[in-house]
Amino acid sequence: MKIILDAMGGDNAPQAIVQGAVDAQSEFGVDIILVGRESEVNACLVQCKAQDNPHIRVVNADEVIDMHDDPAHAVRRKKNSSMAVALQMLKDGEGDAAISAGSTGALLTGATLLVKRIRGIRRAAMAPVMPNGGKGVVLIDCGANVECTAEYLLQFGFMGSYYSHNILGCDNPRVGLLNNGSEDSKGTPLCKEAYALLKSAGEAGRLNFIGNVEGTDVFSGKVDVIVADGYSGNILLKTVEGTVKFLMKNLKGMMMKSVKTKLGALLLKDDLKGLKKLLDVSEVGGTAFIGITKPVIKAHGSSNARAIRSAVKQAIDFTNMGVIEDIERNIEHMVLREEPDKE
Amino acid sequence: MKIILDAMGGDNAPQAIVQGAVDAQSEFGVDIILVGRESEVNACLVQCKAQDNPHIRVVNADEVIDMHDDPAHAVRRKKNSSMAVALQMLKDGEGDAAISAGSTGALLTGATLLVKRIRGIRRAAMAPVMPNGGKGVVLIDCGANVECTAEYLLQFGFMGSYYSHNILGCDNPRVGLLNNGSEDSKGTPLCKEAYALLKSAGEAGRLNFIGNVEGTDVFSGKVDVIVADGYSGNILLKTVEGTVKFLMKNLKGMMMKSVKTKLGALLLKDDLKGLKKLLDVSEVGGTAFIGITKPVIKAHGSSNARAIRSAVKQAIDFTNMGVIEDIERNIEHMVLREEPDKE
Repeated sequence: MKIILDAMGGDNAPQAIVQGAVDAQSEFGVDIILVGRESEVNACLVQCKAQDNPHIRVVNADEVIDMHDDPAHAVRRKKNSSMAVALQMLKDGEGDAAISAGSTGALLTGATLLVKRIRGIRRAAMAPVMPNGGKGVVLIDCGANVECTAEYLLQFGFMGSYYSHNILGCDNPRVGLLNNGSEDSKGTPLCKEAYALLKSAGEAGRLNFIGNVEGTDVFSGKVDVIVADGYSGNILLKTVEGTVKFLMKNLKGMMMKSVKTKLGALLLKDDLKGLKKLLDVSEVGGTAFIGITKPVIKAHGSSNARAIRSAVKQAIDFTNMGVIEDIERNIEHMVLREEPDKE
Repeated sequence: MKIILDAMGGDNAPQAIVQGAVDAQSEFGVDIILVGRESEVNACLVQCKAQDNPHIRVVNADEVIDMHDDPAHAVRRKKNSSMAVALQMLKDGEGDAAISAGSTGALLTGATLLVKRIRGIRRAAMAPVMPNGGKGVVLIDCGANVECTAEYLLQFGFMGSYYSHNILGCDNPRVGLLNNGSEDSKGTPLCKEAYALLKSAGEAGRLNFIGNVEGTDVFSGKVDVIVADGYSGNILLKTVEGTVKFLMKNLKGMMMKSVKTKLGALLLKDDLKGLKKLLDVSEVGGTAFIGITKPVIKAHGSSNARAIRSAVKQAIDFTNMGVIEDIERNIEHMVLREEPDKE
């Protein structure tokens, strides 16, 4: 298996990307293609003592897409950027999966334009896995699609379910619709329409729809896949982030208050690390773009080497575990009407 | 000042309501009217040794609105319910503010139908204060209005700002629009339209609009009022609740793991209480319905006596601090078009 990495994307590129790729290569035995400015990438490989690793290849790309580039056009305008070259190589079959820690919008647009959506899928979705102390909760979509139709949400339900089953190992994943209450009648018109579609799919035995779920359910263990439009999914995801950060900061402040509390903190040190690890996104990998014909993974912009290594693991699983094949096989149940002319 | 309490609403009614009212009466020196089944309420007063308190009056109401009643019609159908009687008394000027821990939907509909909205206000909003380690963040709306227009959101911005300024003591409260990114161009069509209205109001010096805020900003200290439609506001609120609960549970589990961790926890005991208190909704009071002509406070359904006492304090502040007067005085800047015929 060959994993293509955009070596120039992300806050800590190229060093963290190269280091993570080197670690993943030795741990998982895959082939790695690093795309980016050859001299810089090679210098990082030397630093990692991996310049002679025959499983790591460097492909030159002079340009870099940065946060100032318009995401909608970046990949087309900068055809020689590391991200565009990585995606084009994936499309051309020179690798099995692509990973970038660069601009989310540019990567999503690039994946859609170059690698293409699966036939019948209306929109690719961003589906991060939120650590919940168990197998994790798939949140689909978390921001790629601000405006959705009910059909998109139905497709997100199916795609999230296959991801949860195949990658996270959930038996019969419980799919819930994010809403402002658990009663059937809750929500916006979009929610109500999506509810009806998901319910029908559930009744036909095609997915395990458990009804509406609320923000309180993210960590309750009662749901494996949360279906949401990208606007509310993003609010959920960011609110979890903000709340965890606030609590951990206060917890830390509390522990540094006095000699007594410092001693208490010392006794709890190892276990606090466990708690931090439980919530650590760098253990989970990146955010998969689901609905694209080949695996594309968005690693966090702030990824360190550990997070990149996890993203490579996630790309390997995504490639091996047949999520894309499951979507293709079941697409007839996920489409409400014939596909209109391509946008 | 006279505060009217629905003595029968909430999971712990009437005992917790009566106890909280008795505590608040002695602490704040206000007059209290308890509305509910007279014999039950009187029995609770005896238990609290307050049966002879001349500042506490009981008004009989035989019916109770419960969770099985349709919120949209409960107050009209059960005219003799403790909630309906309490709201009618408020309307008739027999008290200055009303509090209920009963059905949120029924209380909101009842407040709108009986007590009425302020002239020009399109929708009353539910605006809980989220503890953030500072003066608190007003989240407006958190679930009363699932479908909103941009004008509603503009009004929420003003109302939240007056609440934050007058009740929480924020100078020039920073008003942010909840969105899936901080850039101006982000969000749904509703967000974009509301953004333009709030921006204009800001530029006219009528409120301090700071632009879009994300879920991560709830606790960041950079915003005092978060404007949201009730759907996404509810997702934010419930996600905070779920995340806090999950973290506290894991923290507790971690501390009970071994003799060593238990000892650590013992040393941190007092400070952990502080952290718990920081996040404790029963310190904050209830959720104010803003936009109604008189103060109506929804206490949490699970309110204990302490939470009811805080809700009474909140009702006193709401009555004294001129939020309603500020809204009435500035209504011309909050209305886009002439009010259509009353629904």
